[in-house]
Amino acid sequence: MSEKLELNKRIEFLEPPEGTETLRPKPVSLFENNPIDLSVLKKLEGRSIVSVKDFERDEVIELAKLAAVLENFEIAPYHIMDGKIVTTAFFEASTRTRLSFESAVLRLDGKVLSIPEGGVTGVRKGESLEDIGEMFNAYCDMVIMRHTETDSAERVLKSLRVPLINAGNGSGEHPTQSLADWYALLKWKPELASPDPSKRNKRMRLGILGTPGSMRAVKSFLLMSLMFQDRISRVIVISQMADPFGDDLVHELEKAGIKYQVTNDMQKHVSKLDIIYMNSIAFLGDSYKNLDSEYQLNRNSDLKEDAVILHPLARLSELDCSLDDTAHNLYFSQAHGAVFMRQALLISVSGSLNRLPKEIPTVK
Amino acid sequence: MSEKLELNKRIEFLEPPEGTETLRPKPVSLFENNPIDLSVLKKLEGRSIVSVKDFERDEVIELAKLAAVLENFEIAPYHIMDGKIVTTAFFEASTRTRLSFESAVLRLDGKVLSIPEGGVTGVRKGESLEDIGEMFNAYCDMVIMRHTETDSAERVLKSLRVPLINAGNGSGEHPTQSLADWYALLKWKPELASPDPSKRNKRMRLGILGTPGSMRAVKSFLLMSLMFQDRISRVIVISQMADPFGDDLVHELEKAGIKYQVTNDMQKHVSKLDIIYMNSIAFLGDSYKNLDSEYQLNRNSDLKEDAVILHPLARLSELDCSLDDTAHNLYFSQAHGAVFMRQALLISVSGSLNRLPKEIPTVK
Amino acid sequence: MSEKLELNKRIEFLEPPEGTETLRPKPVSLFENNPIDLSVLKKLEGRSIVSVKDFERDEVIELAKLAAVLENFEIAPYHIMDGKIVTTAFFEASTRTRLSFESAVLRLDGKVLSIPEGGVTGVRKGESLEDIGEMFNAYCDMVIMRHTETDSAERVLKSLRVPLINAGNGSGEHPTQSLADWYALLKWKPELASPDPSKRNKRMRLGILGTPGSMRAVKSFLLMSLMFQDRISRVIVISQMADPFGDDLVHELEKAGIKYQVTNDMQKHVSKLDIIYMNSIAFLGDSYKNLDSEYQLNRNSDLKEDAVILHPLARLSELDCSLDDTAHNLYFSQAHGAVFMRQALLISVSGSLNRLPKEIPTVK
Repeated sequence: MSEKLELNKRIEFLEPPEGTETLRPKPVSLFENNPIDLSVLKKLEGRSIVSVKDFERDEVIELAKLAAVLENFEIAPYHIMDGKIVTTAFFEASTRTRLSFESAVLRLDGKVLSIPEGGVTGVRKGESLEDIGEMFNAYCDMVIMRHTETDSAERVLKSLRVPLINAGNGSGEHPTQSLADWYALLKWKPELASPDPSKRNKRMRLGILGTPGSMRAVKSFLLMSLMFQDRISRVIVISQMADPFGDDLVHELEKAGIKYQVTNDMQKHVSKLDIIYMNSIAFLGDSYKNLDSEYQLNRNSDLKEDAVILHPLARLSELDCSLDDTAHNLYFSQAHGAVFMRQALLISVSGSLNRLPKEIPTVK
Repeated sequence: MSEKLELNKRIEFLEPPEGTETLRPKPVSLFENNPIDLSVLKKLEGRSIVSVKDFERDEVIELAKLAAVLENFEIAPYHIMDGKIVTTAFFEASTRTRLSFESAVLRLDGKVLSIPEGGVTGVRKGESLEDIGEMFNAYCDMVIMRHTETDSAERVLKSLRVPLINAGNGSGEHPTQSLADWYALLKWKPELASPDPSKRNKRMRLGILGTPGSMRAVKSFLLMSLMFQDRISRVIVISQMADPFGDDLVHELEKAGIKYQVTNDMQKHVSKLDIIYMNSIAFLGDSYKNLDSEYQLNRNSDLKEDAVILHPLARLSELDCSLDDTAHNLYFSQAHGAVFMRQALLISVSGSLNRLPKEIPTVK
Repeated sequence: MSEKLELNKRIEFLEPPEGTETLRPKPVSLFENNPIDLSVLKKLEGRSIVSVKDFERDEVIELAKLAAVLENFEIAPYHIMDGKIVTTAFFEASTRTRLSFESAVLRLDGKVLSIPEGGVTGVRKGESLEDIGEMFNAYCDMVIMRHTETDSAERVLKSLRVPLINAGNGSGEHPTQSLADWYALLKWKPELASPDPSKRNKRMRLGILGTPGSMRAVKSFLLMSLMFQDRISRVIVISQMADPFGDDLVHELEKAGIKYQVTNDMQKHVSKLDIIYMNSIAFLGDSYKNLDSEYQLNRNSDLKEDAVILHPLARLSELDCSLDDTAHNLYFSQAHGAVFMRQALLISVSGSLNRLPKEIPTVK
C-alpha cells in the first residue's frame, strides 16, 4: 500500500483496551493480500437497494473489503462524492441511523438534504409517495429513506429515477444494517470472506434472540446470513412467539437448505452459540413495541468463551453494560463500522468508484 | 457554447416518454440565439425579494434564461456560491419548498443553516422577529424565510441587513413559486421571452382554479401574469368565493388593464383555456384549509388539445394522476425547474454573477 | 498585517449608526500591537469544555484576540476545518445557539451533523447517554451538546473520545456564552486584555440582574468574571431570590476574594453600575421559567452615562427595544461576536491552529 494514503487517525483513537481486541477487530486483515474486485462493486452503480435480496454474496464481501480500506485510511482529501447531493428522508425519525448515513455522505464530501422528522412537515399531509419521488428527482442524486409503511419503498420507486437506499420500511427490511452486521463478523473472522477454501473456518452456530417476522433489522440479518449458509451449521431462533417468521422467511430458509430451530428457552441454548444476534425493538402496526425483552444477557450469562454478541442498537435492558468491556462485545465494532460500510455502498451506488485513490489495491 | 461546459446528466436522465415532449420542454430554446443580459440581473444584487412586485418583467425573463442554462449544463464544478451561508428559516414547516431552496444552494456549493420547523424551538417563544433579524445578520449572508404571519417579512426586514427571500408569508405572497411557474411557461413557449415582436405568440387565455385572495401561490402567479398582460387575452378565475380577490389585487388587475372575469362554473369555461393554474390549499387564519377542491381535473376533463396545467404542488384529489402522462402535464416541468430558477435568483441576489463560467453566452 | 488577508465584508456591512460606536466596538484594537500567543491556545487542543472552570484567564484572552482577527478578516478561503465533522446535538432545542455554532463551523468549512430537536427522535427513547457517546465517536470529530439534564455532559463523557463542547446543560453552565460575553467586554475595553499593567483600567462595578443559581448563562458569566476579579471592584446581584447562588458558587466567590452583595432593590443600585448583565429565563426543574422579569430596563432607566448592558438573548420585556440605539447597547455586539468567539474555540479544540493564515500576527 502506497505511502500516500494516511492512516485514519480516528481509528488509532479507537484502540480497544488491552486484552479485548475482539472489541475492535482490525480492518486491515480484510483486504491484506486480498485486493478489492471493483468489477463486482461496479454492478451496484445506479441500483436501488430495498432488500438484502438485492445483494449477491460477492457484493457483500467486496463492500466489506472496501469498507475496511475506508476504515483504515483517511480518504477525506479525495472528495470522492464532491458535487453529489443525497437526501436523507426520515419520514420515520431515527437520529442514530440518519446521522450514520449523513456522516458517511459528509466524509466523502457529498452534500446532504435532511428530512429529520417527516411527520411534522406540512407537505406530507396527504401527498402521495409517488409525487414525493418526483420531488426527489429534481432535488438530489440519491435518496436514503426510512418510513413507517412497509410498502413505502415500492411506492416511491414508481416515480423515482435516482437510486433509493432503504433505511428501514415498516416491518419490512433494513438492508444496510445487515451490511454493518456482516462487516463486523467479517472483520472478526476474515476467513469468512476468503476466496481460498482451505482457509475457511469451521461452521458456526448462529443464535437470534428476537422475532425476525416483526423486527426488520433481525429479518435482514437472517436473510444475509443465508448467503453464508455454508459457514453456518445451524440457526437457532429464540423468541416468545410461537411462529417468529413470516411465510416469505420460511420459504427463504427452506430454499437455502439451512438447519434451523425455534425455541423459547434461552437458558438451554445460549451456551452453545458462536454468534448471538439480539434486539428487542419491533415495529408492530404503527409504532415500536418492546418484544422478547425478557431475554437478557449480562456478564454472568452462560456464554461460550469465544462467542460474540451483535446488537443493532439502541439497546435497553436486554443487553447489559457489564458486557461492554468483555471480548463478547462485537456490537461496538458493529456500530462503529456501519459508517464505513455505508460509505462503501454510497461510493458504489453513486458511480464514484473511479474517484477512489489509485493506491488502494484492486484486482487488475 | 464552449465544449468545456458539460451537459447536465440529471437532465438526460429526465427525458420524457416519447410523444409527451411538453412534459419536459427543453431549456435550450430559451437561451439559444438569445444571450443573457447580465446587466439586468446585476440589478438584483443585494436586494430582498418579498413580493412579485419586487421584479420587473425583464428580470423575470433574464432569470428564466439563466435558469435554462443551469438546467442544461453541469455547473457544480464552478463552486459559484463557495463561502456563502444561506439560512432557510421555515418557521412554518414545508419540506418541499425548503428542500427546493436547499438543493439550489448546495448545487452552487453554498452552505445551509436550516430551521426545518420553527414552531418547536425554544428561542422563538416570544422573541421578536426584529431580534431574529439581528441574529441572522451575524450568522449568514442571505435568509430564505417562510412564516405563518403575513407581516413577517416586513417585520424581520426592520433589522435584517442581508438579503431576504420570501418563501411564503401567511396569506401574502410566494414570489419564487411564481418564478418557477413562469419559467415552465417560458420553456413551453419561448416566444413569450423573445425580444423580437414578430416572434410573439397569439394571446392566450389564462384560467385560475382557486382563490387568489387566500392562496399566496395563486396570488403571486396572478401578479406575475400581469407583467405579461400583452400576451394574455383574458384571465378567468374559477372560485367558490363570490369575491376571490382582495382589494389590492383588484387594484393591480385594473392598473394592468387586463380583461378578467370571475365564475364558479368550471364546466362552462375550462374547455376554452390555454393555461390552467390550479391549487386547492389555502392559508386561512392560522392554518391550511382545503378550498375550491370541488374543481377537479382528470384525463377525461374537457380540455383544449394543447392546454397545459400548472400546479404548485403538493396536490390532493383536485389534480388526478391520470393526467401525469398526458401532454397537458406542465406541472412536473414546473416542479423540476423550480430548483434551477431558484439557483438563478440566488446567484443574482448574492452577487455571484461574476463567478459564472465564461462560456455562457451573455450580451457584451 | 499582510495585504493578503481581505477585510471581512460582513463587518463593513455592520457599521453602527454615527455616535453609537460602543454598539459595535472595533475588533482591531484587541490584536493591534498585541500578537496572539498560539502556545496558550494549543493547550486547548482535544480538550472538552464543560464549565467555565475548564478555562484559564490567558486562554480566554487569547481566544478573544483570535476571535477579533476572525471578525476583522475574511478567512473563508483558508478552509480551516476542511474534512472535520461536528455534531450539534441539541437534545434541548435552541435555534439561536445551534445556528450560532453551525454558522461558526460552516464559516471554517467544517461539516455539520445536526440534531435540531432531540426530543422528537425515536432513538432517544430510553437510550443511555453513554451509548449515545459511543455513537458520536463513530460519526464525528467533535460534539456540541445541549441537554435538559445538568449531569448530561458528565454522563456522555464516560464514553466520548472526541472533544465535547457544552452548549448548556440543565441548570448547570453555558461556558461558550460567557466567552461571547467577555469577548464583547474585551472589545469594549481592550485594556482588560492588556499584558501591560500601566494600561489597565480602573476597576469596574458589575451588576447582575438575575439568579445565577438557576440561570446557567448568568452562572457561567459570573464564574468567568471571577477570573477578572482584579478588574472588578464589586459584584452586585439583583434578584428576587433570597439566596440567588448555589453552594458551589458561594465557594467560588469566596475563593476569588471578590466583594459581592445581594439585593432585591434595583432602583437603589442600578445607577452605580458600569456593566449590567441581565437575563430573565431560568431553567427550573424540567422547563423554562420567567424569573426576575420585574427588573426591567429601558431608555429612561437611571443608568451611568457610560454603562453598558449585556444580555444573552433571546429577550422578552425585561430589556426594552428603546435601548437598542443607545450607547448602552453592548448586547448586539455580544450576540454578533459570539460566532467569531465560537470559531476561535473550534479552531483551537479541533487542533486546526496550524491552518491559520501566516499573516496573522502571533508571538514567535
